[in-house]
Amino acid sequence: MKTLTILGSTGSIGRQTLDVVSHAEGRLKIYALAADKNVRLMEEQARLFQPEVVVMMDEPAASDLRGRLRDLPIKVAQGMEGIINSVVAEKVDIVVTALSGRVGLEPTLSAIAAGKTIALANKETLVAGGDLVMSAAEKNGCKILPVDSEHSAIFQCLEESPETIEKIILTASGGPFFGWTKEKLDTVTLEKALCHPNWEMGAKITIDSSTMMNKGLEVIEAHHLFALEYDAIEVLIHPQSVIHSMVEYQDGSVLAQLGRPDMRLPIQYALSYPTRWKNPFERLNLRGKTLTFHEPDFEAFPALALAYQVGRRGGTLPAVMNAANEVVVLAFLQKKVSYPAIINIVKKVCSEHYVLDNLDLGSILDADNWARQRAEELISGF
Amino acid sequence: MKTLTILGSTGSIGRQTLDVVSHAEGRLKIYALAADKNVRLMEEQARLFQPEVVVMMDEPAASDLRGRLRDLPIKVAQGMEGIINSVVAEKVDIVVTALSGRVGLEPTLSAIAAGKTIALANKETLVAGGDLVMSAAEKNGCKILPVDSEHSAIFQCLEESPETIEKIILTASGGPFFGWTKEKLDTVTLEKALCHPNWEMGAKITIDSSTMMNKGLEVIEAHHLFALEYDAIEVLIHPQSVIHSMVEYQDGSVLAQLGRPDMRLPIQYALSYPTRWKNPFERLNLRGKTLTFHEPDFEAFPALALAYQVGRRGGTLPAVMNAANEVVVLAFLQKKVSYPAIINIVKKVCSEHYVLDNLDLGSILDADNWARQRAEELISGF
Repeated sequence: MKTLTILGSTGSIGRQTLDVVSHAEGRLKIYALAADKNVRLMEEQARLFQPEVVVMMDEPAASDLRGRLRDLPIKVAQGMEGIINSVVAEKVDIVVTALSGRVGLEPTLSAIAAGKTIALANKETLVAGGDLVMSAAEKNGCKILPVDSEHSAIFQCLEESPETIEKIILTASGGPFFGWTKEKLDTVTLEKALCHPNWEMGAKITIDSSTMMNKGLEVIEAHHLFALEYDAIEVLIHPQSVIHSMVEYQDGSVLAQLGRPDMRLPIQYALSYPTRWKNPFERLNLRGKTLTFHEPDFEAFPALALAYQVGRRGGTLPAVMNAANEVVVLAFLQKKVSYPAIINIVKKVCSEHYVLDNLDLGSILDADNWARQRAEELISGF
Repeated sequence: MKTLTILGSTGSIGRQTLDVVSHAEGRLKIYALAADKNVRLMEEQARLFQPEVVVMMDEPAASDLRGRLRDLPIKVAQGMEGIINSVVAEKVDIVVTALSGRVGLEPTLSAIAAGKTIALANKETLVAGGDLVMSAAEKNGCKILPVDSEHSAIFQCLEESPETIEKIILTASGGPFFGWTKEKLDTVTLEKALCHPNWEMGAKITIDSSTMMNKGLEVIEAHHLFALEYDAIEVLIHPQSVIHSMVEYQDGSVLAQLGRPDMRLPIQYALSYPTRWKNPFERLNLRGKTLTFHEPDFEAFPALALAYQVGRRGGTLPAVMNAANEVVVLAFLQKKVSYPAIINIVKKVCSEHYVLDNLDLGSILDADNWARQRAEELISGF
């Protein structure tokens, strides 16, 4: 049996992780659940899964939850300190990092320092602090198991000799605006951007998918996870989202992982690894299906080109791009900025940043904070 | 460096194996080449690759070749005895069995008894003697590495725990007559049957592809190679031959191997295994490609349904089906029987056979000989 702490249990990945736990026939147990402030759902999850600890990032939410759960022997903790305690606890085997945004970086580093296995669903952690996280994981002998469907696909296609990889091919649905011109994209509304054709996801990642910033973040994530140069990471538009990604080996053979667009598959794989567990989830049926593949349009979707540039430059720049993007996407969700402003502001913040190398957590957080502040200023000015 | 004996070096797979050897940058060396009677090509291959031994199955061909090669220090042997000596020789690491038909069974068993690794391109060996071959390989700790593109694909998609496989999906191009009705198939001529849309192969396998008997033989081959029940082996029509086959695991995840329709890839993989070697062969490019998938038509292509039935019954029956098919396909290539007669005669021979279980090589060869004779009789009667 493996014992889990799930960070972000009330979000989309968190809820699906709990569904996987329900189907795991006693092979998984919850030690702690953590979330930002959704007290109602957290109460429900706590009653159902009976963790030892629940953590609310938001302090008033923690007080509220403490009252609601007083009939149960569950400890209610709060804030970043509560989150960090919940991941380093001795009983914990795997930490599922399903928080959205850069806030996942610190608890991930703490979990690694405590020797935990990470089921990583928080790509911003690797975008902002990839070098730091991967070298800490190596030093501590920690496994980082990807939960993103593309990275899980690549992980499943990896063979023992990484030197035989020629390139990886990250597939991208292309989002709701695949095939649109730059001009047409200027007219996108919030409602349109929130409709993803294949995947049901949280709001932030759905917007990132529509701009292809999500794929850009995944390129940077893949660079760190699989220790590959950017030249060896390719993006291929595949609107049907059946092939989740591929690895091309140096003999010309390509391995691919396919499945239904159901995040419970990569989540379960990260939790069952290195084996696989039977489940009753619907199966992929290829009969009658048509799969197509297209070159990405870097001009209409400049976020993808930007992410490659930013990733290649490295240092604090990926953290800055990510932070600016988080802030501007939130502003777009709040209807404070237009759709084309998202990439324009992110680009401007990146171009103004003085990049530092030789990173520690402090320099990453400083750069992140600067980028957030600068993005806010630019949003107010728009 | 690995030292090879190639059985069937003048055939399609044999010639492509030598092309792989040419590109292997000294990692492969030829000990012996063996073929039936193509003296001209064998002389050329012997001069180029300088093996220690060449074998002609046909005795007059061997005499002829002996004369042609008298300026070189190459031993020319003949017949089944020569072939068997060429595979059991101490220097040999890998035997590539690229003969066509049941004639591959005896040398494969001899190579296994001598502890050699088998690169198996001769599916008829496993169809006729699968239980015998696989149990001998297990007893002698021999690896049997598939060269058929479908089985190589599955082999590349296998993980360490075979018990987590739910099923394998053998893809089939559907051949030149995909989508044809049974009535239209009755009108097929030799010329039409010899035009395969995707693969350039020998004549026998090209006809077998057109009747889908080839896929049926592959189903039986997969049953033996991967120790899977027939219910766990599925055939899926995929006319573009880009996905070479797939493995579905019990969590619903599907791994697939993709590549250009170039037999040098699976050949090289069998020879480089467990690693992969860089090569200059053209790469798969999915941009702009469309992949489709369809249910096979068991009614229009009864050979596939027959192979499943015959495989499930087991014993001497698969050897009989294979032998009858070899004889009838040869007769069709010689324009002695019509296209629909192929399956009718094979079916009739199978239905007349008294199946024996608990096989040894003798009972398999007896059944095989009976089936060949009976097929000949039916051909004369048609």
